[in-house]
Amino acid sequence: MVASRIPVAILGATGAVGQRFVQLLWNHPWFEITGLAASDRSTGQPYRDACNWVIPGDPPPELGDMIVSPIEPSLTARIVFSALPAAVASEAEPAFARRGYTVCSNASTYRCAPDVPLIIPELNADHLALIDVQRRQRSWSGMIVTSPNCTTTGIAIPLKALDTAFGVRKVFVTSMQAISGAGYPGIPSLDILDNVVPYVGGEEEKIEKELTLLLGQMAAGQRRPAPFVVSAHANRVPVLDGHTVCMSLGFTDPPSVEDAMAALSGFSGPDIVKQLPSAPELPIVLRTEVDRPQPRRDRDAQGGMAVTVGRIRTCPLLDLRLVSVVHNTLRGAASGAILNAELLIAAGYIR
Amino acid sequence: MVASRIPVAILGATGAVGQRFVQLLWNHPWFEITGLAASDRSTGQPYRDACNWVIPGDPPPELGDMIVSPIEPSLTARIVFSALPAAVASEAEPAFARRGYTVCSNASTYRCAPDVPLIIPELNADHLALIDVQRRQRSWSGMIVTSPNCTTTGIAIPLKALDTAFGVRKVFVTSMQAISGAGYPGIPSLDILDNVVPYVGGEEEKIEKELTLLLGQMAAGQRRPAPFVVSAHANRVPVLDGHTVCMSLGFTDPPSVEDAMAALSGFSGPDIVKQLPSAPELPIVLRTEVDRPQPRRDRDAQGGMAVTVGRIRTCPLLDLRLVSVVHNTLRGAASGAILNAELLIAAGYIR
Amino acid sequence: MVASRIPVAILGATGAVGQRFVQLLWNHPWFEITGLAASDRSTGQPYRDACNWVIPGDPPPELGDMIVSPIEPSLTARIVFSALPAAVASEAEPAFARRGYTVCSNASTYRCAPDVPLIIPELNADHLALIDVQRRQRSWSGMIVTSPNCTTTGIAIPLKALDTAFGVRKVFVTSMQAISGAGYPGIPSLDILDNVVPYVGGEEEKIEKELTLLLGQMAAGQRRPAPFVVSAHANRVPVLDGHTVCMSLGFTDPPSVEDAMAALSGFSGPDIVKQLPSAPELPIVLRTEVDRPQPRRDRDAQGGMAVTVGRIRTCPLLDLRLVSVVHNTLRGAASGAILNAELLIAAGYIR
Amino acid sequence: MVASRIPVAILGATGAVGQRFVQLLWNHPWFEITGLAASDRSTGQPYRDACNWVIPGDPPPELGDMIVSPIEPSLTARIVFSALPAAVASEAEPAFARRGYTVCSNASTYRCAPDVPLIIPELNADHLALIDVQRRQRSWSGMIVTSPNCTTTGIAIPLKALDTAFGVRKVFVTSMQAISGAGYPGIPSLDILDNVVPYVGGEEEKIEKELTLLLGQMAAGQRRPAPFVVSAHANRVPVLDGHTVCMSLGFTDPPSVEDAMAALSGFSGPDIVKQLPSAPELPIVLRTEVDRPQPRRDRDAQGGMAVTVGRIRTCPLLDLRLVSVVHNTLRGAASGAILNAELLIAAGYIR
Repeated sequence: MVASRIPVAILGATGAVGQRFVQLLWNHPWFEITGLAASDRSTGQPYRDACNWVIPGDPPPELGDMIVSPIEPSLTARIVFSALPAAVASEAEPAFARRGYTVCSNASTYRCAPDVPLIIPELNADHLALIDVQRRQRSWSGMIVTSPNCTTTGIAIPLKALDTAFGVRKVFVTSMQAISGAGYPGIPSLDILDNVVPYVGGEEEKIEKELTLLLGQMAAGQRRPAPFVVSAHANRVPVLDGHTVCMSLGFTDPPSVEDAMAALSGFSGPDIVKQLPSAPELPIVLRTEVDRPQPRRDRDAQGGMAVTVGRIRTCPLLDLRLVSVVHNTLRGAASGAILNAELLIAAGYIR
Repeated sequence: MVASRIPVAILGATGAVGQRFVQLLWNHPWFEITGLAASDRSTGQPYRDACNWVIPGDPPPELGDMIVSPIEPSLTARIVFSALPAAVASEAEPAFARRGYTVCSNASTYRCAPDVPLIIPELNADHLALIDVQRRQRSWSGMIVTSPNCTTTGIAIPLKALDTAFGVRKVFVTSMQAISGAGYPGIPSLDILDNVVPYVGGEEEKIEKELTLLLGQMAAGQRRPAPFVVSAHANRVPVLDGHTVCMSLGFTDPPSVEDAMAALSGFSGPDIVKQLPSAPELPIVLRTEVDRPQPRRDRDAQGGMAVTVGRIRTCPLLDLRLVSVVHNTLRGAASGAILNAELLIAAGYIR
Repeated sequence: MVASRIPVAILGATGAVGQRFVQLLWNHPWFEITGLAASDRSTGQPYRDACNWVIPGDPPPELGDMIVSPIEPSLTARIVFSALPAAVASEAEPAFARRGYTVCSNASTYRCAPDVPLIIPELNADHLALIDVQRRQRSWSGMIVTSPNCTTTGIAIPLKALDTAFGVRKVFVTSMQAISGAGYPGIPSLDILDNVVPYVGGEEEKIEKELTLLLGQMAAGQRRPAPFVVSAHANRVPVLDGHTVCMSLGFTDPPSVEDAMAALSGFSGPDIVKQLPSAPELPIVLRTEVDRPQPRRDRDAQGGMAVTVGRIRTCPLLDLRLVSVVHNTLRGAASGAILNAELLIAAGYIR
Repeated sequence: MVASRIPVAILGATGAVGQRFVQLLWNHPWFEITGLAASDRSTGQPYRDACNWVIPGDPPPELGDMIVSPIEPSLTARIVFSALPAAVASEAEPAFARRGYTVCSNASTYRCAPDVPLIIPELNADHLALIDVQRRQRSWSGMIVTSPNCTTTGIAIPLKALDTAFGVRKVFVTSMQAISGAGYPGIPSLDILDNVVPYVGGEEEKIEKELTLLLGQMAAGQRRPAPFVVSAHANRVPVLDGHTVCMSLGFTDPPSVEDAMAALSGFSGPDIVKQLPSAPELPIVLRTEVDRPQPRRDRDAQGGMAVTVGRIRTCPLLDLRLVSVVHNTLRGAASGAILNAELLIAAGYIR
């Protein structure tokens, strides 16, 4: 599908999510890293010196000498992956889109803008139709396409499988989120060792809003949010990677536990997605042990691209209870944005 | 109130909860430890040798020489505090009650029996009226009085404060429970370090049932369970002590956040309870910081006898969301059972 | 000994060690907190607002309204406790001493100056004689008296007990240090969860140097460093409080294990120290269990003022091996500096 | 080298190390798992049911139906990998060797027997000559070949590199060992969370003895232990995998830091070892960052087969200090034994 590799750059390449982008895009079959951009503090230095590598493994030695660029739309790349802080993304991402770049963003800034697709390819590839609206309204030659919050992702995928079959009406979720979700340096160890912090700034609002967008329907070129109501409790726990979510769900057409399990384990994205290099064989892995999923034991399922669900059981108040685990920095962040870029290529938005 | 100290014994004195009983009853103003009973493995040995002390601090040196007794109703004590496993309690506790002992039990076995009081003194001291029923039906000269599951306790206390004022109808709870709740050796470190286990055997059922009993009403000598519905998700997290619970609550008469806060911070037990040696000045501590309560920072509030609540806010699905923390081995276990014994004395059930 | 309480101030009152000073000096029998000083960021605010309380418990409510002062020698206090960063202490501490304040410092800046006492009262109260030298040389009406590095403290106390009896010649130490030793925010959780960091900046040098000063001898108004050699390996481990140190020791007159145990358990400071309010009954607690001391279980021995030692056994290379645990923010920091201030009063240096 | 795969069995296949063997031998190019043996409790059940999988990933689905055999020398295998407890190995391993099996053992029982090779292929492949002695003395048609203790392994590999070049004379080591080294259930979480346990039963003696055997010289068909002296301090820390060791070393011919680094980074095994399927490209990875190696970040170097060393610096007491990290269940256990089996094939001991 791709003759020569497409030049891509990473915005915010020295941060924790930026490092994940570097790790995943290095040797990617379709993409070639041609730019690493970061804030002024790092600009002009070799990536090796500018970057305090905090994720597992080592930075690709071949990229060590690449000089870090400023975050300006003069990079020699077609796609830019944005791991920028929300405040920085606010100006930078439109500047890149205006100049013709495709911005695949992991930042929260434009996720809820009505003309910006918020995409998980297996769920709502058809929302890419918003790109035309976006370009028309904003007169951009490029575009911004976003991927959702990490916790949202771990909820949205099983929710879609069940919504399609049974019609979700009410969603009660409690998250237990890994520390890597806060970046680096992130959470001080004095705050989280032998502790739980029952608060993650802005997270509950993101979960409640983004879920309705992701599962919304396109109609007449517009995205209509899904009509269910979400209540979220977000917590930080002493886990390195992997967000765990407890859910209680109410349906229009309540399924049995068996039917719910069948819908979850049978879920797959559209054909166009299955062939993408970063797509997992199974977007949802169903476990039947009584005490799974667990973040340490399930976060790496399908290379960190599957959401693992388990403990499907009835709920005294709504219809079903279940638990999901998602790798927050892979499917929930960098890998998710890369999968979006792959989809844009397969769907012909990037040529 | 108490001329000379009342002789008490501990059943299951060598386990983790048993050790807490020893620590708390040592130098108690009303009680004097005269017996330490445990399983055959320990019987006949000095407590010092039989017991692998796993809780903070050291065992009281003066008790080190006390010989561990078998779990048989021939101890020279008026009250026995039971930290027995449920299966052992099943036969042992009635045997003691039959022989005239007052059994203050932390075991789950008899908590839900219709003629056994399940007591948190500040909430339902009037349920002690079930003792008369119990003695009459079972022809016991002694009695069994139980204290609830540790997680239940952390929910029940704030729930009562709100139920009295606004009428609770629906209760969603997700717990994040400390490892000490599983006793010793309990949870293998390989299962919980860098992990969450979204399952605690039997816990969800206990929470759902016990809450309706604790907040039930006495009528015509019977306990009528409270009419609300509870849905519980129980999780184990890498925290030493202190269970954290996220709650969403629906009410008959939904309060504002301010009114709920006033009801919580103004809550206190009846006068008879306030004077008890183990009663906290405040059964509920309300925190207003955005990220509290936290188990490490709040479990020891009021000597581990207060439930700390915070993050009172509205809920998109029900009416209110909040978070509570309770010290699971103090208020939620040993101290709770001791407070019950103190209440029995103050209320004249033990003379 | 003290008619009315002596006014004291805390420099760096909003940091983690500063908070410990506040907690310990509040209701101190001899001292009264009259000033809380911190960097410009906090100056002018009520302590309640300026301080993000990170240690256990809550700040004393009565101090919440005290306005934070700048770090300038115009505080109405006789003694200032310094929890300043080394770089800030460099200018601030002499400025206070020049103006007549007694500076009891926990900062490393002046610990190794030849005319500044580095004191652990039970070990080397006689080193206070350096104060006269200091005042004469520097023309100060006040003084600086320092307390050692937290890890050094946990080594020095047992080392002194053994040195007095058997003459220490070689000291090999490996520390496993708690995260609270790095202050707040300190160590990012992403660096230490499920990990060991075999490096603590500057720590090995401090241990190697300070030990020889603490155990040095006064002669002709000068402090002669002890003649032994120290090799230190410093590590950070995922423990909240309590530094653990493994030691191998060589002696001039090698003791048996029994004699070493007797020297350790029989150790006490001079009479002038025993009566001080913060002095522990036993400076050294000897444990004989095969797996003690442990930081979580032993850090609070004697209110965090004792060093706990155990595993005394022979060493194939030197003479003895042992393990010690010290509470790094109590005996190893704030409490240590307060004990020094108490000694200064008892010894007549402050009237 | 190997036409068809050699049938192998695992003794103790359901335990934590046994599971590692299963994981590593599954799809091994030279070996085919034909037997899974375990204690009576598991015998006769499908492996899927007998085994509570506790290591990362899932058991190979194809092995789930294999029926667990008793630990008796009637398995259809040429090589048996032993992950047996020492007490069980005591009788079982000789029984297998007597019947012609090659026993590649990870148990400690026979490691120090004078006629049993204790092997790390890169270090002392020539010690395999003891097999002839063993067979002659014991009249066995099979053999026992052992791999060392996990902590020993992480010390021995860098020690060998330095011993060859500079002659090791004195070895001080302090280990900080991962919880997986104790198997499953192993260390209770209540013992190790927020804690260090400065004791690992038998570990110090194993380290001190095994190092002298591993680095010993063959002479006249006998193994002469290396003449250096070792002093070990063993500790357990809250880390999942990866043992960290701080070392101080004294040499006959003390090297500069640079020469030591060159010897470490240039180390490799003999040619016969380099070609083995499980041999790492580099047995030693040298890191130059000031705070490496770290167990979480370095345990997986070279697929868990490299020992990572760093912080090479002078020692005030001996000559050099350094830190090493080894993956305790890979190079330090299962992978080490498998590498030994590969060596036996390459060296012609198994045909």
